[in-house]
Amino acid sequence: MQTDTSTESVSAARSSDSTMRQDWVRRFVQVRQRSTDLTAHLSPEDQCVQSMPDASPTKWHLAHTTWFFETLVLHTWQPGHVWVEPQYCYLFNSYYNALGPRHPRPERGLLTRPSLAEVRLYRQQVDAALSAFILACPQRDWPQVQTVLELGLHHEQQHQELLLTDILHLLSCNPGLPAFVEGLTPEQAGALGVAQQLGVPPQEDGWVQHPGDVAWVGHTGDGFAFDNEMPRHECLLRPFQMARRLVTQGGYLQFVQDGGYQQPALWMSDGWAVLQAQGWQAPAYWLAPDDPRNGGDGWAVYGLGGVRPLDANEPVTHLSWFEAAAYAEWAGARLPTEFEWEAAAAWPGLQQLADTAWQWTRSSYDPYPGFRPWTGAVGEYNGKFMVGQLVLRGGSWATPAGHARRSYRN
Amino acid sequence: MQTDTSTESVSAARSSDSTMRQDWVRRFVQVRQRSTDLTAHLSPEDQCVQSMPDASPTKWHLAHTTWFFETLVLHTWQPGHVWVEPQYCYLFNSYYNALGPRHPRPERGLLTRPSLAEVRLYRQQVDAALSAFILACPQRDWPQVQTVLELGLHHEQQHQELLLTDILHLLSCNPGLPAFVEGLTPEQAGALGVAQQLGVPPQEDGWVQHPGDVAWVGHTGDGFAFDNEMPRHECLLRPFQMARRLVTQGGYLQFVQDGGYQQPALWMSDGWAVLQAQGWQAPAYWLAPDDPRNGGDGWAVYGLGGVRPLDANEPVTHLSWFEAAAYAEWAGARLPTEFEWEAAAAWPGLQQLADTAWQWTRSSYDPYPGFRPWTGAVGEYNGKFMVGQLVLRGGSWATPAGHARRSYRN
Amino acid sequence: MQTDTSTESVSAARSSDSTMRQDWVRRFVQVRQRSTDLTAHLSPEDQCVQSMPDASPTKWHLAHTTWFFETLVLHTWQPGHVWVEPQYCYLFNSYYNALGPRHPRPERGLLTRPSLAEVRLYRQQVDAALSAFILACPQRDWPQVQTVLELGLHHEQQHQELLLTDILHLLSCNPGLPAFVEGLTPEQAGALGVAQQLGVPPQEDGWVQHPGDVAWVGHTGDGFAFDNEMPRHECLLRPFQMARRLVTQGGYLQFVQDGGYQQPALWMSDGWAVLQAQGWQAPAYWLAPDDPRNGGDGWAVYGLGGVRPLDANEPVTHLSWFEAAAYAEWAGARLPTEFEWEAAAAWPGLQQLADTAWQWTRSSYDPYPGFRPWTGAVGEYNGKFMVGQLVLRGGSWATPAGHARRSYRN
Amino acid sequence: MQTDTSTESVSAARSSDSTMRQDWVRRFVQVRQRSTDLTAHLSPEDQCVQSMPDASPTKWHLAHTTWFFETLVLHTWQPGHVWVEPQYCYLFNSYYNALGPRHPRPERGLLTRPSLAEVRLYRQQVDAALSAFILACPQRDWPQVQTVLELGLHHEQQHQELLLTDILHLLSCNPGLPAFVEGLTPEQAGALGVAQQLGVPPQEDGWVQHPGDVAWVGHTGDGFAFDNEMPRHECLLRPFQMARRLVTQGGYLQFVQDGGYQQPALWMSDGWAVLQAQGWQAPAYWLAPDDPRNGGDGWAVYGLGGVRPLDANEPVTHLSWFEAAAYAEWAGARLPTEFEWEAAAAWPGLQQLADTAWQWTRSSYDPYPGFRPWTGAVGEYNGKFMVGQLVLRGGSWATPAGHARRSYRN
Repeated sequence: MQTDTSTESVSAARSSDSTMRQDWVRRFVQVRQRSTDLTAHLSPEDQCVQSMPDASPTKWHLAHTTWFFETLVLHTWQPGHVWVEPQYCYLFNSYYNALGPRHPRPERGLLTRPSLAEVRLYRQQVDAALSAFILACPQRDWPQVQTVLELGLHHEQQHQELLLTDILHLLSCNPGLPAFVEGLTPEQAGALGVAQQLGVPPQEDGWVQHPGDVAWVGHTGDGFAFDNEMPRHECLLRPFQMARRLVTQGGYLQFVQDGGYQQPALWMSDGWAVLQAQGWQAPAYWLAPDDPRNGGDGWAVYGLGGVRPLDANEPVTHLSWFEAAAYAEWAGARLPTEFEWEAAAAWPGLQQLADTAWQWTRSSYDPYPGFRPWTGAVGEYNGKFMVGQLVLRGGSWATPAGHARRSYRN
Repeated sequence: MQTDTSTESVSAARSSDSTMRQDWVRRFVQVRQRSTDLTAHLSPEDQCVQSMPDASPTKWHLAHTTWFFETLVLHTWQPGHVWVEPQYCYLFNSYYNALGPRHPRPERGLLTRPSLAEVRLYRQQVDAALSAFILACPQRDWPQVQTVLELGLHHEQQHQELLLTDILHLLSCNPGLPAFVEGLTPEQAGALGVAQQLGVPPQEDGWVQHPGDVAWVGHTGDGFAFDNEMPRHECLLRPFQMARRLVTQGGYLQFVQDGGYQQPALWMSDGWAVLQAQGWQAPAYWLAPDDPRNGGDGWAVYGLGGVRPLDANEPVTHLSWFEAAAYAEWAGARLPTEFEWEAAAAWPGLQQLADTAWQWTRSSYDPYPGFRPWTGAVGEYNGKFMVGQLVLRGGSWATPAGHARRSYRN
Repeated sequence: MQTDTSTESVSAARSSDSTMRQDWVRRFVQVRQRSTDLTAHLSPEDQCVQSMPDASPTKWHLAHTTWFFETLVLHTWQPGHVWVEPQYCYLFNSYYNALGPRHPRPERGLLTRPSLAEVRLYRQQVDAALSAFILACPQRDWPQVQTVLELGLHHEQQHQELLLTDILHLLSCNPGLPAFVEGLTPEQAGALGVAQQLGVPPQEDGWVQHPGDVAWVGHTGDGFAFDNEMPRHECLLRPFQMARRLVTQGGYLQFVQDGGYQQPALWMSDGWAVLQAQGWQAPAYWLAPDDPRNGGDGWAVYGLGGVRPLDANEPVTHLSWFEAAAYAEWAGARLPTEFEWEAAAAWPGLQQLADTAWQWTRSSYDPYPGFRPWTGAVGEYNGKFMVGQLVLRGGSWATPAGHARRSYRN
Repeated sequence: MQTDTSTESVSAARSSDSTMRQDWVRRFVQVRQRSTDLTAHLSPEDQCVQSMPDASPTKWHLAHTTWFFETLVLHTWQPGHVWVEPQYCYLFNSYYNALGPRHPRPERGLLTRPSLAEVRLYRQQVDAALSAFILACPQRDWPQVQTVLELGLHHEQQHQELLLTDILHLLSCNPGLPAFVEGLTPEQAGALGVAQQLGVPPQEDGWVQHPGDVAWVGHTGDGFAFDNEMPRHECLLRPFQMARRLVTQGGYLQFVQDGGYQQPALWMSDGWAVLQAQGWQAPAYWLAPDDPRNGGDGWAVYGLGGVRPLDANEPVTHLSWFEAAAYAEWAGARLPTEFEWEAAAAWPGLQQLADTAWQWTRSSYDPYPGFRPWTGAVGEYNGKFMVGQLVLRGGSWATPAGHARRSYRN
């Protein structure tokens, strides 16, 4: 009978929907758990201190990503939701003017309270409520909720990466240059995702040629993407060459030893001013042979694993845009545009591009033609920052697996 | 006879060359004289003081442009040239690392000596030597000399405009808000090129439609252009609309009165931060009705002619990029890209674009594909500043006649 | 027999010495234990963060006072002493140039490592070693060791007071204005020495007359004193009057409500500049009736016990010198000189002076006639700071019992 | 007859009063003229620029001292006085809150208008009006007017000294280190009062002994004195020694060459911090042998006469208090208190003290016992600055003759 059939198909739909919701819960829990795992070995002190105005304490990252879910999902969609702790709305809002006033960024490190224990409890409370809500959310709201959830998970992953770079900066301010966690084996560090050595197999040198064409760039439409990756549009590419592998630490050391940091002609005007004002001699986290914290005879590099001898085959990382541009000038090359990068990333021979390290491009961070920010509070996610910055492409050891993609603009 | 003919043609060539050289001298003297004329009514004090680190004293502009000619023409090409005053090489170098060390920019205003009289003498000495050299320069050097001369004259014109905006800022720091020159008639101000009222005939409102295409942009090759306008290249233009006239002071006043400076949602993130830090309430040089320096009942605007009532039909000027972008957001529009601007500037109905006021675009100041800076010291002219800035197009009341062109990027 | 007698007296001496050494151990342990007790309820985060360059983290205070004993006693006097952790010599030196380089003061809050647990262990190790050394120290060294021990204990007590004022500042930066320890009864707070309410019995109003004379001031020679309290010397006192009780919060509130913070004539020039730059409207830690953090209808005061209504009878505290001087000007009085204070403190009717609150004097912190700093590293304790400061006299709720005395200069 | 006698005596009184008034006019004109003479050779630019926030432009000094007379004499005492230029009340008020708002100190150098010519005219107008008023002032007002005139003249003399030290600083910022006036003979420089060489006859070395006693200090009551020199009071002096002559440049050079600027133990804590922050290596205006601006082989000193070789017999000048104190520490001595200085200045053998150079004392700038500031606006002259400063005694080449006295506190 028709009715029966109908009931069956509804029931099948329900069952498939239910499975899908359970998958969502699983994915939600996994992403959230990774944040907790990453920070499990850090002391409350490590997680509280802010080492510069631009960085945030670990504890703040953990609370802010939770606030994001509580505000944009539970508070918005769950009838009768009661704030876990009303003051958190003020303390853990990052930059959303539409969502009310907020605690000043440079003072995030002064929040010794709530304690780490309280923030962990906050995470657990919101995670439980959210998991329940994913299963219970009425079907009519689900499409919109799903969109926000997706965004929230990518947001969490962005903060997982920020968290690691912020903690690296904090620990680098300690005269003892401690490791993120003392006494880890390389395997354990790898499992935690903080292996300092990238262990990239040496790649063939040389250049790959692109003939130029009218290329489509931007998000293809499959899967999640931020609003800044859209709309997909055509752009003119002129013929260009792209290096087959990333610049290595060895290559960059040649630039340093050739006096790269002493020749203004290689630097952009603002870059040279910063270099002089801050006394740059080499990349951040590099230790010169005569640095007393070095521990060896040659150059060394500090990372979450502690101080290690410079490995000439590893890609160089933690460069500022000015350093990348000066190196390119010295090497007789230039940085690619973000669209050259995006085209090259599609080639089989250039896998390093994808996820080995973030790579500076020559492109200013401009909106794509026809760009409109998302509506609502999340419209403040990207658009209002599109001025005076340059685009990073790629991904790094600190980027969660599956987070980046070819059209990703950082 | 062939010989005769040959002699004649050589002689004709000489004669035409000689005429051409004299034309060069005439043009050189005219451009140089305008700098002197512009500043003839300013006191030595007006010409010495530096009102902020980014501005330069008038006297410094006068000396620096002279140093440019002495260094890049006389010192480089005239055998046996003796520096007029060796110390000026240090004092009046702006940012050319290749040309030696230089006096720090924020301390330019401390140079009470050389006096204005000495700087004027310096100009006269270099002008005389240069005029003589233009006539005497060997034919084999002339093509290169001519190129540098051309650059030097455009450089002088850029400084004529800077000089006026710098002096406007200085005078605006005086509680009395004095006029550039007291007691000028509008005609005299116009002749001096500092009429505050632009006197633009009201233009029809509305929008002009562009269908989009692949357009050629950049310098066409006729006449002078800076290296940053090249190479000429194609770019994709999508369909867009351009306003038929510039934003008026009356239009911008509506934005102000509608609370434009109180709504963070209209502003870029960095713009809102600057607005808050500096307490912006309206454009620079606007005086609110309750400002004691106002002198009237309504809004007024300060300019080189002194304080005058706001004229709703005049184009609004002296906006920061952030203000222009916020206004566009409020008006439901956006800033054009620099290439949209360049395409639109070719239309007959949009003459205001050309020389009424500088106009902000949405485009970051990036090098054109294939850009290479000029070689030698002049290579520092543009390239090393191509990061973190946005492009202005157009021209203003302060721009010397004949200085700007459609491909000009500021 | 002489020998017997001699033996007996030696033995008696030994026995009395042994008792005395044990008394020293007891006193040492008690003073040190109070630091630990004071901080027992604070989280590792509370103890790590530095809220301004002039303040130090609690953990740093705990480690620095320990470093003082390890360096000046164990390292100096105990043969074969091995540093507990060599890096601590660098990290926890405050300002003793003679004792080597040191970690920059504004970066003390970046030391997330060593952890609080490690610092507590450090204290235990040094305390144990020091207790043993007190008993074992050879008699010939004892007089000098005793002097340094005495200094170290007073040093520890100074830091106990600093620690509480620093933590008060840190917690005041938290928008929630938390209590030092949540949920303490007044008795518990009193036992911990952090009762906010001083509970001073209201004292008779009025003035006490001093006829003036040549008075002896400075340390009398009994018991411990810092070098800055010596040498004792005569000074001329003219007739003066001293208020019978300290200025109350109620009295100061009248000053505030009378517009004291709006009248430049009441303020020293530098004081008025600071007031304007920092927007002072009332003393630090006072909350105006309309402050959202207030919780009541009237003025409130924040302290280690949290936010409480202003009690008009309590002495006003946490004033800057400029505020004290402006109040005195408003009240038609003046601050006393430090010698007037010292003379008045000897009178029976003025017990409040002694230990209720620190009191600003009109005296600059100058060396006494004939002052010579201690020799050795401890010579850097006081002398090198004797310029551009003003003298505080008295003592407060945060001052350990028995630490202050009449000749004490803060 | 009684009447006759009476008439005669009135007439005699009038006559003597008239002579006295004419003497006042003469003295007024002389003191005022010296300011104009001192600055006659400086260009408008030299007189307009402000080289640091603490210094004032020459033009400002000239106008401010004039404003002082116009405000406190003409405006206060002359019925119907009309301000020469109302805006000057705002522009040239230094720090008198009671006399209305004022132009911010760090922006004095931005006042290119009024021009120097206008300020000179302002001086002439006020001088003429004031001379007339001195003669015409009613007898009943004269005592008070005379007091303010006296103050105004001393105020003018203080600014004559400030003006010279400010212009010295400004010229020292010029890479060319120009002389105050180029081409002066030593005689002309001496006549102008800006001879750099003090030409002090070498004085006997050694020490003078003071036995100590109860000494009277402060102004004796004869002639003018500032309120900060009163009331005269007794103070206890302990036995002390005073050096027979001022510290010479040669003596100070030994301190420099002995590493005085590298030994923290010699410096006050704040002094060492300033030394490190600003990179002090020697006194201000000293040029090391390897300084390219030196012009010779040894040490040189820059002054208003230009760069000259260091003269070992001249007294060292332009020391900060920290440098003076560090030198004394190095020399095994100490700075005198201001009362030791005042007592010593009365001895015949120590004439150098009086007027050779300002001399730092160990005394903080505290009010004398019983000090009350003058009433009215002039009460802001001294009292509100009495905190956190140290006392200079003596006088220098730049001090106008007759301006300083033994009780003078700077």
